[in-house]
Amino acid sequence: MGTLKLGMVGGGIGAFFGAAHRAAAAMTGRFSLVAGAFSSDPVRARESGHALGLAPERCYGDFETMAKREAGDDGIDLVAVVTPNHLHAPACHAFLGAGINILCDKPLTATLDDALALQMAAAGSSSLFGVAYTNAGFDMVREARSMVAAGEIGRVRLVRVIFPQEWLATAAETTGNKQAEWRTDPARSGAGSLGDIGTHAFHLAEFVTGLSATALSAEVDTFVPGRRVDDNVTAKLRFAGGAKGMLWASQVAIGETNGLRIDVHGDKGSLGWTVEAANRLTFAPLGGRRMVIDRASHGTAFKGTMPPGHPQGFIEALARLYLDVADQIDAHRGGRAPAADALLLPGIHDGVRGLRFVDAALRSGAEDGRWTDI
Amino acid sequence: MGTLKLGMVGGGIGAFFGAAHRAAAAMTGRFSLVAGAFSSDPVRARESGHALGLAPERCYGDFETMAKREAGDDGIDLVAVVTPNHLHAPACHAFLGAGINILCDKPLTATLDDALALQMAAAGSSSLFGVAYTNAGFDMVREARSMVAAGEIGRVRLVRVIFPQEWLATAAETTGNKQAEWRTDPARSGAGSLGDIGTHAFHLAEFVTGLSATALSAEVDTFVPGRRVDDNVTAKLRFAGGAKGMLWASQVAIGETNGLRIDVHGDKGSLGWTVEAANRLTFAPLGGRRMVIDRASHGTAFKGTMPPGHPQGFIEALARLYLDVADQIDAHRGGRAPAADALLLPGIHDGVRGLRFVDAALRSGAEDGRWTDI
Amino acid sequence: MGTLKLGMVGGGIGAFFGAAHRAAAAMTGRFSLVAGAFSSDPVRARESGHALGLAPERCYGDFETMAKREAGDDGIDLVAVVTPNHLHAPACHAFLGAGINILCDKPLTATLDDALALQMAAAGSSSLFGVAYTNAGFDMVREARSMVAAGEIGRVRLVRVIFPQEWLATAAETTGNKQAEWRTDPARSGAGSLGDIGTHAFHLAEFVTGLSATALSAEVDTFVPGRRVDDNVTAKLRFAGGAKGMLWASQVAIGETNGLRIDVHGDKGSLGWTVEAANRLTFAPLGGRRMVIDRASHGTAFKGTMPPGHPQGFIEALARLYLDVADQIDAHRGGRAPAADALLLPGIHDGVRGLRFVDAALRSGAEDGRWTDI
Amino acid sequence: MGTLKLGMVGGGIGAFFGAAHRAAAAMTGRFSLVAGAFSSDPVRARESGHALGLAPERCYGDFETMAKREAGDDGIDLVAVVTPNHLHAPACHAFLGAGINILCDKPLTATLDDALALQMAAAGSSSLFGVAYTNAGFDMVREARSMVAAGEIGRVRLVRVIFPQEWLATAAETTGNKQAEWRTDPARSGAGSLGDIGTHAFHLAEFVTGLSATALSAEVDTFVPGRRVDDNVTAKLRFAGGAKGMLWASQVAIGETNGLRIDVHGDKGSLGWTVEAANRLTFAPLGGRRMVIDRASHGTAFKGTMPPGHPQGFIEALARLYLDVADQIDAHRGGRAPAADALLLPGIHDGVRGLRFVDAALRSGAEDGRWTDI
Repeated sequence: MGTLKLGMVGGGIGAFFGAAHRAAAAMTGRFSLVAGAFSSDPVRARESGHALGLAPERCYGDFETMAKREAGDDGIDLVAVVTPNHLHAPACHAFLGAGINILCDKPLTATLDDALALQMAAAGSSSLFGVAYTNAGFDMVREARSMVAAGEIGRVRLVRVIFPQEWLATAAETTGNKQAEWRTDPARSGAGSLGDIGTHAFHLAEFVTGLSATALSAEVDTFVPGRRVDDNVTAKLRFAGGAKGMLWASQVAIGETNGLRIDVHGDKGSLGWTVEAANRLTFAPLGGRRMVIDRASHGTAFKGTMPPGHPQGFIEALARLYLDVADQIDAHRGGRAPAADALLLPGIHDGVRGLRFVDAALRSGAEDGRWTDI
Repeated sequence: MGTLKLGMVGGGIGAFFGAAHRAAAAMTGRFSLVAGAFSSDPVRARESGHALGLAPERCYGDFETMAKREAGDDGIDLVAVVTPNHLHAPACHAFLGAGINILCDKPLTATLDDALALQMAAAGSSSLFGVAYTNAGFDMVREARSMVAAGEIGRVRLVRVIFPQEWLATAAETTGNKQAEWRTDPARSGAGSLGDIGTHAFHLAEFVTGLSATALSAEVDTFVPGRRVDDNVTAKLRFAGGAKGMLWASQVAIGETNGLRIDVHGDKGSLGWTVEAANRLTFAPLGGRRMVIDRASHGTAFKGTMPPGHPQGFIEALARLYLDVADQIDAHRGGRAPAADALLLPGIHDGVRGLRFVDAALRSGAEDGRWTDI
Repeated sequence: MGTLKLGMVGGGIGAFFGAAHRAAAAMTGRFSLVAGAFSSDPVRARESGHALGLAPERCYGDFETMAKREAGDDGIDLVAVVTPNHLHAPACHAFLGAGINILCDKPLTATLDDALALQMAAAGSSSLFGVAYTNAGFDMVREARSMVAAGEIGRVRLVRVIFPQEWLATAAETTGNKQAEWRTDPARSGAGSLGDIGTHAFHLAEFVTGLSATALSAEVDTFVPGRRVDDNVTAKLRFAGGAKGMLWASQVAIGETNGLRIDVHGDKGSLGWTVEAANRLTFAPLGGRRMVIDRASHGTAFKGTMPPGHPQGFIEALARLYLDVADQIDAHRGGRAPAADALLLPGIHDGVRGLRFVDAALRSGAEDGRWTDI
Repeated sequence: MGTLKLGMVGGGIGAFFGAAHRAAAAMTGRFSLVAGAFSSDPVRARESGHALGLAPERCYGDFETMAKREAGDDGIDLVAVVTPNHLHAPACHAFLGAGINILCDKPLTATLDDALALQMAAAGSSSLFGVAYTNAGFDMVREARSMVAAGEIGRVRLVRVIFPQEWLATAAETTGNKQAEWRTDPARSGAGSLGDIGTHAFHLAEFVTGLSATALSAEVDTFVPGRRVDDNVTAKLRFAGGAKGMLWASQVAIGETNGLRIDVHGDKGSLGWTVEAANRLTFAPLGGRRMVIDRASHGTAFKGTMPPGHPQGFIEALARLYLDVADQIDAHRGGRAPAADALLLPGIHDGVRGLRFVDAALRSGAEDGRWTDI
């Protein structure tokens, strides 16, 4: 139904995030999926495309061919790159080369070098480049960012972000779990918990505060015997302007399914948010009472489309990013400036920041937690 | 992208639930919106259709014409009826007459008489008839129903359901709020809080327990001066088999945006759920410890598509109902039995139950809370 | 260490609430336990007194003797009556007769007739008569009452109070559980859940709102086969001035240990409190944001002695009532008016209200929920 | 009423923790306050003693005299030392010299040197030496310790403890706040947030896990301009056996009154507790469901005296430590081994550990977070 043509790389039938991206794009009403190279296996790639009802000639066996054929006015308006991490870079280079807009899953790439090279390529291109840090799509995360920017908590002193999960508390990668296999394979994922969820936590910290983290001191652990990547990281952070922080990301935290949480304390107040109660923000002004700010409650900056109190979910947050992409594309074509909200779409700079964080954490961890520039 | 053709009655641009329904249908990947009569004003109806990118000949000025033209193999596979309550009945009659499948918003109709007449018409039709009790689409609500059915809490003793909201705590209907205007106009809404949210609460109680409420004793209040419908209802309930219950629905509960919550106590345990933490169920077995069951956590019956812990939201729940519709339509056409889960789609019987509840509550309230059969 | 002399009736070694009362009185620093008739069995009564280190001549075998001997200036300043319910009346009559101040456990008596007779006797006496509705001792309950009285939530519309427990979900009275035995024996307890926890809930509703409940419509249930008293009650309430209410008390609610909770909605805001988070009050003003008010946080009326955030517990709440008693006794002797806070001590009027509630609920329940004056 | 004679140093009328200690000791029913040197100002010391109703000859003007006079069989059985930190050491030396049992507030002393000297003196004495880490008195903290010891969460991997408060978010020490004044005066307090609440957090981590922290890497901050001590600390921890940890203590965390919280993750499960919901423990076994364990719920090791669900508060936790002291004293005099539970009383070793933590954190912080042995 949407008027923008969407293509997808990776994310074939059965792949988890591909389905989430398709649902998110579809629910915006702005995109129609028309093309894809859904797997690195050409046969499975085409099967997925057919199963999704695409025209046979747009079910590609590889992304290079797809990028070439979809270049130009009749081609796709946006490609969603949802492959394993190590394929993000080559796929994105191909579509940048074809002048096609990109929304790439996070982490941007498997290595910092790949990220920097991609950033350079993107700088020389007119393509829009978004990175799917989904949490930046939640209304209350945007509300938090807006409140910090408006000075409601004063000058930021402390940033605490945690992202505990349990799904790798045992050696799931040896049990046939495909997600666990590639995410714990250094060649395909780059890093472990650092890349998968550490980058989410790091981005959330910078996104909400509007501050840049300048250095970290990290403890990088692998608790499960035989695992080839990190599964837990604890880091102290320093931010530009003097704020201090703490970050914990873990995939061995039994009892935690998806416990992303951020708390920001300033000299005039504090804010807290967790994805487990994504519709609410806690806010405490100095000398006042702690408050709960609901999505769409009185006086918030939020301009949403759902009734007050009705919960906003994960796919809706991802859809927000697709809306941002659509708004930016339309504005660009119309010669207009995009709406301010659409500019909150995380971009390649944010993607590179994620890899800088991973890289600095690995180096700091290897040197007994030495403070390392990010 | 979807292969099923969707039409819509009501829900034009700017109407709240129309957009939610379109997003929900789209995110399933099974429906494409192709036709609509989006307003009772023919000019606005067509404008909405055009704005949504529909073919001009399928942008109808009224639903009667739409029903006639969309009948048959080339017509729509499903119509979503999202008008104000009093128009549900005539619209549904028109589409039943045309042999078109229906997903109708709740409450089914504005009056019990209308509901019964519609039920009779539906019984004589081969159309599928779904009613959009959205909460029945949340995974954890289905999990709760499944646990009760499996005997995990034993024989049900007590059912407590509350649905407090604040949005009509003052005379919002006099301030230009369109939603408030029609929802407090007896001619268009039928009843007030009883129809709008009481039916949600009542359905949730019957859906989760699998029990029929047989009688109620209700106190029906209008707290805001000048208001023409009820804005608060308190009821005691009796269920088949001896369980007792309590229901509270209010639109004057300041501080509550959307506080739907159900607790079911049996002789072997209890279950609790609230839409404010829609991804979790609390479960307490007799002699054991209280537990939190996460969506997609270990050992639940849930077979979802989202990763553990990632929150499921309102539109995703509505999308579950669209998936159920799609599965039922496909199974019917394929001569197969639908999957068990798809049969959880609320149907016209559930819609009629809602009106029976409203009618019994109004009569009981008028007779000082006399126990009244439902 | 305290300068006021305390006596106790009931509550011997091993009895649950006796120990809580002794701890509460002691922690105030105002009372010294000096006398007692700790059991209806004279031998056990004296053994308990000795075990507690009392002078032998003040370890009484029965309360009648104790009342006589402790009358006068050298006797006790206060007696705590913590026997099973049916003995409250005779014990209180004895101490009223001796001119001794009383703090009696709730429910005041086993029957309404007993309560009324006791009220008449108290009216003719100069003794102070307190009733140990412990929840009235929590700071945040007093804060809630003060906020309602100050008009912070406007005119009260709705009062919802629930008190679910699980400890009688099965026939615990047949397993040797002494508490369960006497509390389910109509001769000793009067009523079941109604008297034990219904009176707590009812008092809390009247205490916080400052309103009198005028009538109720109750459903009184006994879910456990063979049980001789009620174990669950659901009631609608009407209050003077037009407010409506709902009360649920249950001892068969598996998973709930002590879930007392009250919510009060007015036309300018709402307040909520639960003993499970006794240090906090939720407050939502009309058009504002929901707030959490901590014990001892900014701007509350509370003048406590504990540091902010440190939790106040059950015995501390009971101790607050002992402080109130001590303040009233000292003020009376000093010819001063007691501090306003000390006057919040629940008195015999509140005790009688509890029995009126029990009596009305039993009658309403027996007549199919007929609205019955309280 | 208690048979053990209690003396107190510091904690005169108006002093905050003195009153809490007196209430806690009294509510146990085991102690009677008979002597005190309640202030370093002899006049005020005696006034406080008189106001508390002590015999004039036992209202001392200084603790040295008190220690001498109270030595021996007719003297006190226990002294509670509740002065500012820098006076703990001289007072404790005096009472150790007199052979009197001690319960000393935390931190044990103002400096590590003082702590080590005191430990040596205590080792040469037969006096019992307890340290009032109040949180070790909460039932659910003991339950957590017991569950970890029983292997219910397997081998510990991660320990996360936070203690945020807001009361020093601004320069409260310049506004006449006496607590703020001495707690931010290095001469009287030793350290700031490190000593006041960091030691609580550190002790809780070691107490619950039964593990010794071997090294830390700390960031020690002073956010409020002009403040002479730290007001925020962030540390990574390493424990014997390979567990890793994280500690955050802050007195500038606006919105947090007393947010002490600990989470322990093992390879078979996890546990969580916070003083804000002190009656509950969360427990998640590997492959199972998250559970809430209530104080006194089914199957816990807890042997308490309060009914299920009734909240246990701060003073009750402190009273638990006084009970432990009383049990140990009685057992010692009776030639019996104390009950296992009484041995959970934190001792001088725990007090010294606190100062080792403070000292290591200050050194690590001064060296840019170098890993430093504790």
